[in-house]
Amino acid sequence: MSTPLILITNDDGYNAKGITSLVNAVKDFGEILIVAPDKPQSGMGHAITVNDPIRCYETTQFKNIKAYCCTGTPVDCIKMGMFLLKDRKPDYILSGINHGSNVSTNVLYSGTMSAAVEGALEGVPSIGFSLTNYDPDANFSPSIKYIKAIFRTLIENNMKKGTCLNVNIPAVEENEIMGIKVCKQGRAFWDDTFDQRTDPFGNKYYWLTGSFGSKEKDENSDIYYLENNYITIVPTQFDMTCYESIKEINQWKLDEI
Amino acid sequence: MSTPLILITNDDGYNAKGITSLVNAVKDFGEILIVAPDKPQSGMGHAITVNDPIRCYETTQFKNIKAYCCTGTPVDCIKMGMFLLKDRKPDYILSGINHGSNVSTNVLYSGTMSAAVEGALEGVPSIGFSLTNYDPDANFSPSIKYIKAIFRTLIENNMKKGTCLNVNIPAVEENEIMGIKVCKQGRAFWDDTFDQRTDPFGNKYYWLTGSFGSKEKDENSDIYYLENNYITIVPTQFDMTCYESIKEINQWKLDEI
Repeated sequence: MSTPLILITNDDGYNAKGITSLVNAVKDFGEILIVAPDKPQSGMGHAITVNDPIRCYETTQFKNIKAYCCTGTPVDCIKMGMFLLKDRKPDYILSGINHGSNVSTNVLYSGTMSAAVEGALEGVPSIGFSLTNYDPDANFSPSIKYIKAIFRTLIENNMKKGTCLNVNIPAVEENEIMGIKVCKQGRAFWDDTFDQRTDPFGNKYYWLTGSFGSKEKDENSDIYYLENNYITIVPTQFDMTCYESIKEINQWKLDEI
Repeated sequence: MSTPLILITNDDGYNAKGITSLVNAVKDFGEILIVAPDKPQSGMGHAITVNDPIRCYETTQFKNIKAYCCTGTPVDCIKMGMFLLKDRKPDYILSGINHGSNVSTNVLYSGTMSAAVEGALEGVPSIGFSLTNYDPDANFSPSIKYIKAIFRTLIENNMKKGTCLNVNIPAVEENEIMGIKVCKQGRAFWDDTFDQRTDPFGNKYYWLTGSFGSKEKDENSDIYYLENNYITIVPTQFDMTCYESIKEINQWKLDEI
């Protein structure tokens, strides 16, 4: 088997501690190409840049590894990585390590996870990694051996085409990690509000803020296990059809125009 | 029953022809609040604005209807609308009419559909409408009676909580519309490339471009029916778990750290 080619991005930007930690964790598994945002792109979800041009510069941030920083979103970075590789397709796409959790419905808002979902759309086995610590100087050390183990098992096994993994790691000491759980996306939601302020010129502006929490007791979900210090793996796919509703909506009198 | 409150947004911006057409189509069904982006926000997916403040201004663009334009993304607009309404929750959230199709995997990239998915996350019955015509002066007239009929049936029926509808309308003459199909999200993908250019200062920049197409024969899907001049309705939900992979990944030797 030839050396696997691993395309890596994140959403905190190319100079975040999390992506350096991820690169160090997996660099012995294959050849690496990094294309990462040139600035923080948290909360960008599956956004792509359609109304503006994109720039992409080579960076020496990563020693002996080909790396680019890109003005686009995390999903743009995956598309740019595939473009730069031309006819060669990456064998794996990895994203992260995100500074902050991406459990539950955050899979929709997260640039880190959207990059992994973009990998799934491209038919490339992909993983998004997140640590439950927003600190720019978060301690990624306890997570490294788990990241290696999860990536190694992905290489050893065949994952269903069109899926990726959403991996969340509790920011606790190594001896406090309870193990790994493969589970579903939990049902938790943002309780949003806006912090309204007035600028020096008398005009109103707003900061989006809010708290994230589980409204439902939902065991066997990522939010439940992560709160109990497990590393969680949610196999994630991109078909958002609600199949059980198709029959029901077919009962509606849609033909009475 | 009291008058329903309808929150409306789009991703082409508050001054697009599509949102005016949608407002005109549904204004007799209830009270309307519009919060729409102040500029085009196509391709913004489920992005939210976390690193910058948001501004939100009242606009007189819509006669006798309370309307705001907002510097944020379509999902920000939904969150802002909910914030402006304070204790009252909208009964319905509508998004569109998008200038351009949002079938298949475009549900992930589309600001129009992400606004509707945000409605589903909020537990509000929501619909995203799209017309397969990117022209700013597209003819929305043939679609109006279908939009009225679909929205009326949503009001008359109970949709499963946590779902929204992805409605795509073919841009053809009224007598060419074959009917309405409730179906699944098709499996089609973008074949991306970048158009590389050089700016006047000798630096490279890129435009994301590409073509969208079905690689699979996938009948009973939105992409198939829309190509055959049906209006398509895909019931859409936000649980992206690949349930069938949970058992499979549990076979991986994840405990061999």
